[in-house]
Formats: sequence, structure tokens, C-alpha cells
Amino acid sequence: MSSCPACLVGLLLICLSIDYINARPNFVIMLMDDMGWGDLGVYGNPEKETPNLDAMAAEGMLLPNFYSANPLCSPSRASLLSGRLPIRNGFYSNNAHARNAYTPQDIAGGIPDAEILFPELLQSNGYRSKIIGKWHLGQQPQYHPLKHGFDEWFGAPNCHFGPYDDKKTPNIPVYRDADMVGRYYEDFMITSDGESNLTQIYIQEALTFIQKEAASNQPFLLYWAVDATHGPVYASPAFMGTSNRGRYGDAVRELDYGAGAILKQLQTLGIDNNTLVIFSSDNGAATYAKTGGGSNGPFLCGKETTFEGGMREPTIAWWPGKIGAGQVSHQLGSLMDLYTTILELAGVQRPTDRIIDGISLTNTLFNNQETDREIFYYRGDELMAVRQGLYKAHLWTWTNSIEEFNEGTDFCPGQEIANVTTHDQVNNTMQPLLFHLGTDPGEKYLIHPMSHEYRTIIPRIQAAIMKHKQTLVRGTPQLNYCDSSLMNWAPTGCEKLGRCLTAPPSNRQLCVWPH
Amino acid sequence: MSSCPACLVGLLLICLSIDYINARPNFVIMLMDDMGWGDLGVYGNPEKETPNLDAMAAEGMLLPNFYSANPLCSPSRASLLSGRLPIRNGFYSNNAHARNAYTPQDIAGGIPDAEILFPELLQSNGYRSKIIGKWHLGQQPQYHPLKHGFDEWFGAPNCHFGPYDDKKTPNIPVYRDADMVGRYYEDFMITSDGESNLTQIYIQEALTFIQKEAASNQPFLLYWAVDATHGPVYASPAFMGTSNRGRYGDAVRELDYGAGAILKQLQTLGIDNNTLVIFSSDNGAATYAKTGGGSNGPFLCGKETTFEGGMREPTIAWWPGKIGAGQVSHQLGSLMDLYTTILELAGVQRPTDRIIDGISLTNTLFNNQETDREIFYYRGDELMAVRQGLYKAHLWTWTNSIEEFNEGTDFCPGQEIANVTTHDQVNNTMQPLLFHLGTDPGEKYLIHPMSHEYRTIIPRIQAAIMKHKQTLVRGTPQLNYCDSSLMNWAPTGCEKLGRCLTAPPSNRQLCVWPH
Ligand SMILES: [Ca+2]
Ligand SMILES: [Ca+2]
Repeated sequence: MSSCPACLVGLLLICLSIDYINARPNFVIMLMDDMGWGDLGVYGNPEKETPNLDAMAAEGMLLPNFYSANPLCSPSRASLLSGRLPIRNGFYSNNAHARNAYTPQDIAGGIPDAEILFPELLQSNGYRSKIIGKWHLGQQPQYHPLKHGFDEWFGAPNCHFGPYDDKKTPNIPVYRDADMVGRYYEDFMITSDGESNLTQIYIQEALTFIQKEAASNQPFLLYWAVDATHGPVYASPAFMGTSNRGRYGDAVRELDYGAGAILKQLQTLGIDNNTLVIFSSDNGAATYAKTGGGSNGPFLCGKETTFEGGMREPTIAWWPGKIGAGQVSHQLGSLMDLYTTILELAGVQRPTDRIIDGISLTNTLFNNQETDREIFYYRGDELMAVRQGLYKAHLWTWTNSIEEFNEGTDFCPGQEIANVTTHDQVNNTMQPLLFHLGTDPGEKYLIHPMSHEYRTIIPRIQAAIMKHKQTLVRGTPQLNYCDSSLMNWAPTGCEKLGRCLTAPPSNRQLCVWPH
Repeated sequence: MSSCPACLVGLLLICLSIDYINARPNFVIMLMDDMGWGDLGVYGNPEKETPNLDAMAAEGMLLPNFYSANPLCSPSRASLLSGRLPIRNGFYSNNAHARNAYTPQDIAGGIPDAEILFPELLQSNGYRSKIIGKWHLGQQPQYHPLKHGFDEWFGAPNCHFGPYDDKKTPNIPVYRDADMVGRYYEDFMITSDGESNLTQIYIQEALTFIQKEAASNQPFLLYWAVDATHGPVYASPAFMGTSNRGRYGDAVRELDYGAGAILKQLQTLGIDNNTLVIFSSDNGAATYAKTGGGSNGPFLCGKETTFEGGMREPTIAWWPGKIGAGQVSHQLGSLMDLYTTILELAGVQRPTDRIIDGISLTNTLFNNQETDREIFYYRGDELMAVRQGLYKAHLWTWTNSIEEFNEGTDFCPGQEIANVTTHDQVNNTMQPLLFHLGTDPGEKYLIHPMSHEYRTIIPRIQAAIMKHKQTLVRGTPQLNYCDSSLMNWAPTGCEKLGRCLTAPPSNRQLCVWPH
């Protein structure tokens, strides 16, 4: 049609270029908060109240052997985004041995600039990125998501604890991008009955962002970090009382609905075939919350512990046309693998100047093949356990202190395994406790140290530990110091709202981590 | 074509008659032995090693609130076939309070002639019937399946315990119809390593029977009572070592394969649209077998107990074209319901001279509607617990005696709930222990007796108990007496094989039931 062959070639190159950009997939990470492995119908919850997530699994791949990098929110999330264990990225404390630490609003630390989060790499390679919900990598401005690879943010830097008295503690702010737009319990209500429309807002934010980005020519990353299943658990009026599992179940139903709405949105916009969606949770269900928390199915204990209930996550991968429907993979996976997998799929080089713990799961997702690897279970500054194949060795055991336990904080309610669910920190490094998670998913039956099985497996695991430790460079611990003056007294944007509070004098001190 | 209108009418009537007969559905009951609620992928087993059963659920209806009538084989099976609780049909003992009893090979009793089993009613209404596998309703000839409604039998009257020394105890015979055709460990091997081709034989028996009956004009009942997941657990060479769950998992895989082969056979023969298939298990997983037994998922304890782990069964209903695909029903169901449901579907009147505990599930299966009803949990001669809606009240608690426990028999390994998993028989009838199974499927968190919830619910449950007890006529206990002379010394057919043994003198005495 044209008499200008050079123009044609040029046009072709432009088309190819646009095709190449468009061909880069979008990424949606749906990260639940304290949701347990046993909370989804497809993972065996007896009430089967997650039809949308069950359908997502039927259309995609179930990953029953998928782990968080830590049994607590902040370190788990820092690892997801950095692709590195908390011990490397600094999301731990060494104030005391093997203690879980996180980012309450008086924490001094946060995600170090030196960590290269995958959203940063996507952003600098043409992706648009948004986080909706809980950040939890530091409440000070320099740690905020817009400083670490996100173009947009709607959500909060901390957990929705409260309500607080602003004399001693301010309520947690909710941000839109760089500015505070209100606070929990003031502008964003969560009633004592667990009523809140926050999840509906988070759903709408997701749908709007996806629609906007689908209309553009840029690929996108959506990190949907909703927190309704973290205590205090909440649901919106339309979902209150709709489950057989109390308010916790109502929250699960609403999140299930939201996940379904997001998948539907991708389909409606015709971008489902170009979007990888991962559903998972940041740590195990908070069994200490008793009937108010979630379920870890057949697994031992829950959040805060390095037993399976603390770190095995209900994970689903979905990408119509790329991930075959109705598949199950036994791959040992980690939330840190999303780092490596996503960068590979985006065609972005991953950092080569540091160890990335996440491995690429593309061969798992697209070909249902497995890669050998270990899972390292850290609690604070200590490597507590290691999984290799179907075997798990505990180097240290601890639930919580007997004092805490006697005061009613029970991480393993109804469960008691002699020498395993210990209330002392027990050092088993000289003779690790060994379990076979295939025949014994509940970590109940110790493999005898004199058995052939033990003497075959333990050296292999010890070799993996040695290799791991040889290359381990510990990051500077970020979660050692707390300071009331650093709380959310005057978040950016408070001036416009006339809602700034006056910070007290600094009282920098070592944080106390009881667990 | 014909000049004889009367002939035409006659032909038409014959055709209608054949159509009517053909229209009556076939029934296949796949009853597992000691398989637990948590053993199927679709019910949350982490290893997800049951692709055929998971597909069966995806094509049919999942029933996560389905119960056996008893936590032990014989009473559970007697109830399934009679539609009545063991306390009515006599499958209990009152030698001691609240003890589980069954039919070892020296049992004097068996299924009473007065009980009208649904296979008898189907048989007298034109059905052909076969049992494949374990009968367990009495080893004496008058109790055999061919005397109680079955046209064909391939299997054994007792569990596959052994091998025995025929001086004191004969090995269990395997029958074809009325005649013994061999014995376990002699003609039908189960090695100490758990190798046996029995499941393959049972699969082939099923496929052959279905093919034969499909070619006839009669509807059929197949009761596929396979026992590979009952200790000693076994699998055939092709399945040994194929699971991540040891020999137990291998057995599950083989049974899953068999279930798939049976469904495939129905489809190949074009009778899937006219066949109701029910998959379930006779009692909870034998948690006392530790890593050698199955999984009860998130539930408390296992076989022998009236906690959820003892009686909640992994149940699936399948009938393409009649039962919609991918459904879940929260109906409280019981294996006894198969009695009433099957008779209704066969157009056969059920007995009106006695109480039938089973209710019809047709409205559940075809319309996904729920019927209110209670689940009564008996152990021996005692009503231990009652479920109504999401609530369960324990009138009595007991695991096993502290003596047995101290010797290593643990029905609740790794689980310990104060005042619940008791080693004494504790009478709570004056103030039942109340649990909400929705928020607390593991029966861990007692609802406080002073709470509004307790004071609302308990009277309703007590009213149901009163109603139940008012109409309760206890059957004559069948499981009180044992006698070594009644063992399988000289089963019918032994003469032809030259394999008759000589019975010792009678030593009739009260059976000892430790649990
Ligand atoms: Ca969390
Ligand atoms: Ca059984």
C-alpha cells in the first residue's frame, strides 16, 4: 500500500516494540494477612466458604508446599519484596536470641535503601506499580513504598491496631500515595464488633487501578496487601454474619469475593492471558487468637513459630493460557521466589552483587517441573529449622516462654508434642529433630536418631546448612530500636487535614520482643 | 406394520415395562476402611495424591459434614446397611460401659435376621447386588451377605488381621459367594512389607460385575467395601512407593485409581447417567497407627472416639446429569442416610414397623437444600455426643484408659484438650461440653456454660436428646459373647479345597472390649 519500504520497516519496528512492551506480563500479588493454610476450601477448610479462590485453583495451580520467609508480617513482607531472607535484608532483631520482631509504629528501622526491591526494578523498566493495604516495612517517610518502587499507595504503614489515645499513641494513618488521608478509628472505622468497609475500599482501589493501567500501554504490578484477617478482624456489613466461622470467616468471605472480583476484572478487560496472579499469605494463622483466628489445617502451631503452621501458606498461581488449569505442584516454594520469577518474566536482570534467596518458579508454573531447594525457617537471628524434600529438621525448638504461656498466650492450642512444642528455647543443633512431612505433616513423630533414615538424611541437611551459612552475610538488624518520637504523630499530609500531632521527645531504646 | 393392534399395545406395555425397570438407578457405594476425612486432596491433604477422587468431587457433590454411625468398622457397616443406629440394630456390647465392639472371628453374634437391610429390599425388587471386600457383620454362615440381600460376594467376613497360627487361630477366609476360596496369608498374600494384589482383585471384581449387570436388564447395587487402608495396610507392586505418605499413601493411591476405574467403567458403558455413586469411609483414620495411618485433617482424635476425627467421613456423591458438578453441601449427613435415599430412588417402600435413623438426601443431592437433623455419636451402649447445626455437645468424654495410654495406645497423638481428651470416662450429662464446629472444628474451645450462647443452645440439644431417647428401643446386643469354636475353622467350601480345620471345644464367654 505504501511506496516507502523504509517507512514500512520503521512501522514494523514500532509495532514490534509496542508488542514487546505489551507482551510483558502484568503481576498481581494478593497477599493475605495471617490467613492460614487451612482457611481455603481448596485447602481443606470444612466450611468451604471460598468459592472464588477454589475456582481460581481449579483454573490454575495449587502449591501446597509454599512458605513465607518468616512467621511474622514485617520480615515476611520484606523478604517477598527483596527476594532475600530477613537475616540478609535486616528485618530481624538480635536484641535477644531467636525473637520475632516487626515494625510497630515506634520502630526506628525500616527497609534499607541498599535492598533492591523488585518493584523498583520493574518501575525502572517501564512498569506502573501500586500497593494497596499494609506496607509494614517502616513507618518513617524514607521507608515508605513510594520511595521503594511503588508509584501509588493506598493503605497504612502499620497494622490496624487501636483505637489509640493520641496522648501516648496516635492512631495509624492511612495514606494515598505520599500523603496521609486519615487515620484508623477516626476516618477509617473499625468498630469493636469488627465492622469496617476497608476491604471494600481495597477492592475498589484494585479494580480502578487495573482498569486504568489496562487502558495504558504500560505493564503493571499490583500488590494487594489486604489485612482484614489480621486481628482485629473486620468485615463490611454486607459480609457480616455470612460465614459459619464467625467474624474471621466473614473476613475470609469478603476477601474471597474481592479476589474473585479482581480476576473477573482482568477477564473483562481481556488481560487475564497476560497477567500472573499469585494468592498467598504472609504467615500462618494466629492460633493464639483461638476461635477468632484462622486455621492451619493439619499443621502444628501457627504464627510466630517455625512449625509448619507458622510458615506454610495457602498459595495459588493463576494465569489462563500460560498456567494449565487444575494443576498441583509439589515444588517447595517461597514468597521470595516471586522476586526472581517476576523479574524473569518481565525480562529484567536481577541483581548479581548479592545473594537472592528466591528461585525462579517459571519451570514449575508453566511445565509443572520441580527444582530441588531447601526451605530455611528463621526466627529472628536464628536458623530454627530446614526443610529438604519431604524432611524437616529442627535445629532449635520454641513456642513461647512458659511465663507468656501461663498467662494464656498459646501458639499451639490443643497441641502438645513432647520435646517439640517446647517453652524453653531448646538447642538441638547437635542432634536435630527430624520429621517426614509426607507421612507426618503435623510434626508429631520424631524419626529416631539411630535409624538408618536419620543417619542418611541428617548429613544431607547438615551439608545444606553449612553451604547456607558459608555464604551468609547478615544484614544490619533494622528491628532493634524503638522510639516513641518516631510514631505517626505528624505524617506527611497532616497539615492539609489539620491533623498533625506533636511528637514527644525521643526515648530511643532497645525494643522488647517477647516472642 | 402389524395388522394386530392388540399386539402393538402388548409390545408397547412390554417396552414401557423394560423402560421402567431400566430407569431405576444403579447404586455403587465405595466404602473405605479407616480412611480419614483429611486423606483426600479435595479434603485438604497436603500431598494431594487422589486425582480421581478430586475429579469425582469436581464432577459431583462434596459433603464435608457427613458422618458414620459409629467410630468402628462393624457397627458403622451394620448401620449403613440397616439404616439404623447400632444401639437399635444390636451392633453394640453392654459388657462394659461405652466400649467399642466389633466382629472379630470369635464373635458369637452378627446381623440379626430381624434387621431389614436395604440390599434385601432392593434384591426382592429386582436388583442384582454384590459386595466386594469386607463384610464384618458376623463370620457365622447365617450372618453372611448371601443370607442378607446380596447375590454375590467376593471378600472376607473379618478384617485381614494375621497371619495366624491355625492351632489357635485360623487365617481369615476369602469367599466367592457362599464358598471359601482361600485364606489371607495363604492363598491371598499380604506380606509383612504391605504388598498384596487384593485391591487389584477388588477393582477387577467391580469392573466385571458392572459390565455383566450393564448388559442385563436389571438395575444393580455394588457395595465396594475395600480394606487396603485398614491395618495392616497394603498396596500392589505397581503402587508401592508411589506416594509421599508411605505404604498408607500407596494404598490410598491404589484405591483412588480403583475409584477412577469404576467411574470410567460406568461412563464407558453409558450408565453413568443412571448410577448414583457414593464414596465414603466407615470411620475416622486410625490415629493410633501414627505414621502408618491416615489423616483426619483439622479434626480431633480418630477412630474409636466420638470426637470429629472418629466419625466425620470424606464423602462424595456423583451422578452425572442428576447431581450438578462442583457442588458443596453443608447437610449433616450420615452413612445411614444411604438406606433411605437409595430405597426412595429405587421406588421401594421402606419399613414402617421400626425407626429408620437415615433420612432421604435426595433434596440435598439434587437441589442442594438442607434438612435439619441431629447427629448422634454413640460409643457402645452410650450416647456420647450430639451435633445440631454447627453445635456439638459432649455428654460423655473418653479417649482410652490411662493404662492403655501409658502402654502407648494413643487415639489423639499430639493433641491434648483439658477436660475433653480424657482418659477417664467423664460424665458431663448434667452440664454438657459445648463446641461450635464452625469457629472451632478441632473441638478445642469450650463454650462457657454461663454464656448466653450455651444457655440458648443446650436446651435445644437436650430436647433433641429427650426425643431421641423416648423412642429408643435398644436391640439385643450382638457383640457380647465370644467363642473360639466359632472361628473360621471350617468355612463352607473348605471341603472342596481340602482346607478344613478342626474347631476346638466351645469356650463361650463375655468378650473383652478394652476401648
Ligand atoms: Ca501477618
Ligand atoms: Ca474401619
